[in-house]
Formats: sequence, C-alpha cells, structure tokens
Amino acid sequence: MNKAMVRYLLSKLLMIEAALLLVPLIVSFIYQEDWAIKLSLVKTIVLLLFLGGLGSFFKPRNHHIYTKEGLLIVALCWVLWSLFGALPFVFSGQIPSLIDAFFEVSSGFTTTGATILPDVSVLSHSLLFWRSFAHLIGGMGVLVFALAMMTNSKNSHHEVMRAEVPGPVFGKVVAKLKDTAQILYIIYLAMFIIFAVILWLCGMPIFDSIVTAMGGAGTGGFAVYNDSIAHYQSPLITYVVSIGTLLFGINFNLYYLILIRKFRLFFKDAELRLYLGVILLSTVLVTLNIVQLYPSLSQSIRYAFFQVVTIITTTGFGITDLTTWPLFPQFILLLLMFLGGSAGSTAGGFKVIRALIISKIVKNEVLKTLYPRRIMSLHVGQDIIDKETQHSVLKYLAIYVILFIGLVFCLTIDHQKDFMVVLSAAASTFNNIGPILGTSETFAIFNPFSKLLMSFAMIAGRLEIYPMLLLFLKRTWSNY
Amino acid sequence: MNKAMVRYLLSKLLMIEAALLLVPLIVSFIYQEDWAIKLSLVKTIVLLLFLGGLGSFFKPRNHHIYTKEGLLIVALCWVLWSLFGALPFVFSGQIPSLIDAFFEVSSGFTTTGATILPDVSVLSHSLLFWRSFAHLIGGMGVLVFALAMMTNSKNSHHEVMRAEVPGPVFGKVVAKLKDTAQILYIIYLAMFIIFAVILWLCGMPIFDSIVTAMGGAGTGGFAVYNDSIAHYQSPLITYVVSIGTLLFGINFNLYYLILIRKFRLFFKDAELRLYLGVILLSTVLVTLNIVQLYPSLSQSIRYAFFQVVTIITTTGFGITDLTTWPLFPQFILLLLMFLGGSAGSTAGGFKVIRALIISKIVKNEVLKTLYPRRIMSLHVGQDIIDKETQHSVLKYLAIYVILFIGLVFCLTIDHQKDFMVVLSAAASTFNNIGPILGTSETFAIFNPFSKLLMSFAMIAGRLEIYPMLLLFLKRTWSNY
Repeated sequence: MNKAMVRYLLSKLLMIEAALLLVPLIVSFIYQEDWAIKLSLVKTIVLLLFLGGLGSFFKPRNHHIYTKEGLLIVALCWVLWSLFGALPFVFSGQIPSLIDAFFEVSSGFTTTGATILPDVSVLSHSLLFWRSFAHLIGGMGVLVFALAMMTNSKNSHHEVMRAEVPGPVFGKVVAKLKDTAQILYIIYLAMFIIFAVILWLCGMPIFDSIVTAMGGAGTGGFAVYNDSIAHYQSPLITYVVSIGTLLFGINFNLYYLILIRKFRLFFKDAELRLYLGVILLSTVLVTLNIVQLYPSLSQSIRYAFFQVVTIITTTGFGITDLTTWPLFPQFILLLLMFLGGSAGSTAGGFKVIRALIISKIVKNEVLKTLYPRRIMSLHVGQDIIDKETQHSVLKYLAIYVILFIGLVFCLTIDHQKDFMVVLSAAASTFNNIGPILGTSETFAIFNPFSKLLMSFAMIAGRLEIYPMLLLFLKRTWSNY
Repeated sequence: MNKAMVRYLLSKLLMIEAALLLVPLIVSFIYQEDWAIKLSLVKTIVLLLFLGGLGSFFKPRNHHIYTKEGLLIVALCWVLWSLFGALPFVFSGQIPSLIDAFFEVSSGFTTTGATILPDVSVLSHSLLFWRSFAHLIGGMGVLVFALAMMTNSKNSHHEVMRAEVPGPVFGKVVAKLKDTAQILYIIYLAMFIIFAVILWLCGMPIFDSIVTAMGGAGTGGFAVYNDSIAHYQSPLITYVVSIGTLLFGINFNLYYLILIRKFRLFFKDAELRLYLGVILLSTVLVTLNIVQLYPSLSQSIRYAFFQVVTIITTTGFGITDLTTWPLFPQFILLLLMFLGGSAGSTAGGFKVIRALIISKIVKNEVLKTLYPRRIMSLHVGQDIIDKETQHSVLKYLAIYVILFIGLVFCLTIDHQKDFMVVLSAAASTFNNIGPILGTSETFAIFNPFSKLLMSFAMIAGRLEIYPMLLLFLKRTWSNY
C-alpha cells in the first residue's frame, strides 16, 4: 500500500475542509456572534491547516495509487472531516460531548440530518449554518467536490467517484471524469440556488431559505427550527420543499440529458418512472390512512406527499408528529427509508434502480421454475443488465441485509423498549434519512456507544458500504 | 400441462388423508368422546373418500409429468390437506370459523404451531391429537410420506422431494429415491418414538408425551396446555424437550451417516457446527440478559436454552412470558426465527446452510475490493459451492426478503399498534415457528384476511416459496 500517498492526499483534503470552514466564520461575522464562537471556528481552521500542512509537506515520490488506496482515502476522508468538523461545536460548548458532535457532523456530511439536539436553538447561526453546509458539500460527495477543485492528483479518480456516487452502474456523462464532476456540480449548485431563491420568494427569511435549501439539495434534512418545516405554517412552502427535494432525488445524469435537450430519453428512464410511481402510490396509500387525523383532505394530501417525498429522497424534514399515525402509513415510510432515491442523486438508501433490478431477477427466477429450459435476459428500459451486474446487485443486497441486521442487533443492547424506535433509528442512519419513527425524541435517547456506531453506519450507508468495511479489515493495513 | 394427472394424483392424496384421519378417530374412541365429535371425523373421512374416489376413478392415459406439475401438486396438496383437515374442527363446532380452522391445521401440517385458540382446552382429545399429528406428518413433508407409501406414480419423485425437503442442495442418501424417503422416514419415526418414551419416563402422562413428541419431532410446537411446556413445572422435562427438538433441527442425512458409522463425517459437517455454535452463543447472550428476571442462574440458563432451541428449530414451544424480557434477548429470538434450523431437517426458516453460504459470498466480495484480480472459490466444509448454487442462494434471499416485506406490509393494515407484534407474527408464520413476540395473545387478535394470508405464508415458508408462488401465476394455468 502506498501509505505516503494516502497521507499526502488526506492532508490536502484537511486543508480543503479548513477553507470550507471560512464560510460559517463569515456567517459568524455577519450575525456578530460572540468571539468565543468565532474563536472555536478559527481554532479548528488553524488546527486543520497545521496538520494538513505538516502531512503534505513532503511530496511522495510514487504518486500511483490503486483501488484499495482510493477506497481507503474516501472512507478516511469522511471520518476525518466529520471528526474535525465536530470541533467547533465542542470548542464553543454548544455540543460539549465530542461523540455527540461527531454524530451531528457525520449526520451533516452524510446528508442524514439525524440530530442529537433535543433543542436546536442552542446552536448559533454560524454552527447551525455549518451543519447544513455539510449537507450541501456531502450531497455530491466530498471527494467529488475536491476532485472538481483539485488538479494535482492524477489517477484513481474513477475509483474515487465510484465510491462516492451511489448506484450499481456508474455512468460518466462526458468522456473526461473531471469534466463530469464539474458539470454535475454546476447543475447541482444551480438547482440549489434556484431552490433557495424560490423559498425566499415564498416568504422565508433569507438565512432560513439558504439553510433549508442546503438541507433539501443534499437530501439531508437539518432545518432551522425544532419543528422543522412545520414552523413556517405555510402550505406553499410545504409544497415547494416537497417538490424541491423530489427533484434532488432524481439521477443527476438525467438533468444533463435535459441540458442537451434529450427530453425523450429523460422521460423514458425506467428508474425515474418507478421512482415517481412509488411516490404517487405511497402518497395515495398514506393519505387514505391519515385522512381521519386532519381537518381537511387537502391537509392530509399535503402531509402525506411531504412525508413520502422527504423520506424516499432520504431527506427527513419534519412536518407533523408521526407518532399519531397508524402503523400502516408508518410502515410505508419505513419501507421507503430502505428504498431510497435514485442512483446518481444525492439521496441515500438502497436505491430504486437496485430494487428494480432485484424485482426483475426474482421474476425471472420464478418463471424459470415454470420453463426450466428457457434462456432469459434482464432489461431495464433499453439496457440489458448483464449477469455480472445482476450478481453484484444481489451481493449488495446480501451485505446490506447482514450489516443492517448487525446494526439493529447492537442497538437493541441499548435498553430501548420500543422495537420500532430501534429499527427506524437503524434504518434512518444507515440509509441517511434522519428522523426516528415511533417516538418524538431525538437521537439523544441513545447511549454514546450507539451514537458512535450510528455515526459509522451513516458514513457506511453514504459510501455504499464497501469503503467503510475496508477500514475495519486487518488485511487492508497489511503491506502486500 | 397434464391436468388429468394432477387431478388423479391429488385425488389419491385426498384418500391418504382420509386414512390418516382414522388415527384421531381411534383416539376419540379411546377417550370415549361424544358421538358428535366422532361424527365430525367420520363425515370428513367419507367426504375425502368420495372426492378422492371420484377424482381417481378414471386413470389418465398419459402418466408423464414435468417440474411444473410436480410443484403444483405439492402446493395444491398442502392447501387441500389443510382445508379438509380443518373440517372436523368446523363440523364439531370446536373451531366454528372455517378460516380459523384452516389456519390451525395449516399451522399443524407446516409444523408452525401458531394457534388462533386463546384457550386450547376447548379442543377434545381427538382433535388436539389431530393438529399435533399433522406436525408429525408435515415434518418430513406430506408428499415424501406419500412417496414412501405409494408405488404407482413413477416419475418426478425427485422434483417432489426437492420441493418439500428444505435446503439449497438436495442430497440423496442412497441411489434410489424411494429408498431414501423410506430410510429418512424410519430414522424420523424411530427418533419420535424414543422421544415420546423418554418424555413418558420423565413423568408426562402418555397422551401428553405422544402429543409433545409429535410437536417436537415435526418442530411444530402445538402442545397440550395453554402454558405449553411450562405446565409440567419440571426442569427435567424442559431439558428433555430442549435437547429433543435440538436433535430434530439437524439434517437427517447426517443421522444416516451415524447409522453407517461415519462418525467423523458427522462431526465435520460445517452446517452442524455453525448450528450448534449459534445455539451456544445465543444461549449465553440471552442468559446474560435475563439473569436478573429469575431467582436462580440455573433457571435463567434453562429458560434461555429452551427458548433459543425452540425458536431456532422453528418449533415454538413456550416456557415463560417473553413480554417481560428486555428487547435485546427478544431480538436475538427474532433473528433466530429467520435463521431457522438445518437444511434436510424438519425445521423451517431460511436455513443455517444458506446463511453460511451468504456470509462466505459476502466475505469474498469484500476481499475482492481489496484484491480485484484474485480468483476466489467458496468452500463449505469439504465441498466447493459452485457459482450456480451461490447465485440461487442469493436469489432465494432476494425472493425471501421481498415476500417477507410484502407479508408485513399486508399485516400492518390490520390495525395492530405494536410493530414487534406484526413483525414477529409475520416472521413466525413465514418461518413456521409459532409464537408471537411482544404480546401474550394468540393469533386470534388478527382479522380473517390476515389469518388467511398467514395460512398461505406458512405453506409458502414450509415449501420454500417457489411451489406456492406458482399457484398464483396466471401462466401456470395456461396450457402451453
């Protein structure tokens, strides 16, 4: 293993985080916050610059890295960014416990939006901004971001993007990878800005509209108030947020198709169709089952649509107290937690396309018992999914199920009483969603070990498991 | 499709059920029960003989059947036996609702042991015997039983046994299939008789010892009293039942190895080792987490061991009120529900060998990200598992997960409040176990639609899904 190169690149990445922390520092100045808060940010920046400078002082002679190093850098980068990103919260005393702060910031970068804060008003503007800013950065992948910026690391870009951009098949929209990263980032940022402006035009304060748009764009879900989007008591804002997050749950490669005016290809995409179909069906089912809880049908539809979209896109904004809902609509939301958004979007979860492929594999398998001699191929839209991809999707399902069960197993030790709480907390973190079903509490109810475990689960979920698993293999660290 | 042959064989099978019903009729005479009860049995027998005689009157000219017909016969046979087996309960008024009785008898044949009876003492000796006798018959597969008896149907034996004998790889112990069925049946019945005699020697009344041994041998779980094995208040009986059911969760082919004195091969079996290891580990973990609930450590160990074995073998006898247990040991039991016993045993569930293969597939897949160019094979014990088997196990996982989620989905409509109840009811029926976690109630709390659905889930689980799925495919019934 090329340890020198891993050290060198990680150090560079720490310095990038230092640069990113300048943004909340500016926010801190705008809102004329206490010097203690500004100082907590400055301290972190200085620390990052020092460590980053030290680690990148000696350039390694051998620049070549393989898959193993690529995956390792991705995994370590997410852990380190979450760890150092947590320091301003600890230094300022706004989240005194490092484990809590680590949870909160991994939740930010992984666009989960799960919080350990029972009352979010303890956060100053700058740190509230920082955790949501982490959504925006994490949404497209922190290393894709770095790649779009950096010019010096010449290889393994492909591996790095594969590790961060979710989905079973990784498609480049244009030939050069750096250009792909930049094009996707431009689409992403443009959509984010439009989103923020529309929210502002709908009457949100400017700070709130930026924070909410960051939460929606990254499909994260951190908001400004404890009662999240419900705070604004505006049906218009509810719908804007719903539709906004819905759009960020779509594969970004498809937006490129719109940009180059290939509209037919956009609407013929099988994953998009299934994604929209599931949203429609779930909204109808949920509406029918909560209609007796609210004064009007329109409110039921609004809440149902909002909750379905915010969960399937793995955003996790809140609009109403879900504990009052019957079990059936809650279970629909739990299922959507696992389904997740589209591949190549900012959403987490298992991904619609994988579910689609697996359902077709199963269909073929059942037909094979009827016609044992028939040879069957598997199509998704126009594309044939080869055996290799089919098997890798099946293996992903297996590893996903095993890790999820392991996560729930560890969390049940944590003396919780209600299984729905444990199950949905695990699903919520592993799929990068945010809220817990079956309780109105936050993740503060869990013990430090569970919080740490869920922090790693969030990163594992965001990176689609493999990079994080490597981190815990002894063989990864051996030299051959 | 050779419909005439399907009709002919099913009719023969109905007549076999008529013969089986003579056994509870004898019990009814022994206990000098009301004529109404005897009459309910006689009526059913006459009905079965009439329909069976009618359907098998004309011998089909073409005796040849393919996989499709084989699977269909298996699926239909289980449904029909459960349906007609339910009639004595309805005729005698002991379970007035046909759906309830159908649930109870499918629960019997599939060796689930789930009951809709809040109070089992409403059943007469004969009908109490009949539902447990169904365990004994269903344990080895109703058609394997028929095959061991019948001599006239000459082909597709292999397909039929594949469909009923659980596990990913189907091994014949001797060359001829009919001999295999007979050898396995002899081992099975001998073990059952020894089990019953030991229970009787431990002080159980003779009726109880036969019923309990049938419940244990089939890994079913129907008992004589509402409080199941706890009724006898005997640590000795508790241990005998634990060890007895443990033995019935082992692959019967392994017992053949003992009979032919290949002891080394027996103890080297990878599935057996994992099975025993899981039981040991689970017992330790459960004991540690319930030790504060009971006056003595020995009692905690006894209860933990009993519950672990009764669940992993998918038997489902009861010993204590599980609702008082913390969530962690309950979750362990829930996991064991899915794991199930060994392939080729009478146990249900996903099967230890499949879990073993999947864990090795996942391990290989993770190592492949480290060493992309290395070619890896997969061993279980001495055997190499080929790609074909690996993929069929992965596909089985996919279909298993999808159907299980679908089942929970439908059950959550049933206005239950507690998710653990719904989840464990689904797991309990689909994996043929019996009890519900998180409540002291029986399946009586579910509505008729849910009960019907779970009846089919039990049969689907027992037949490892595919045969039952075919029943609901339009294409199965088309003629080409």
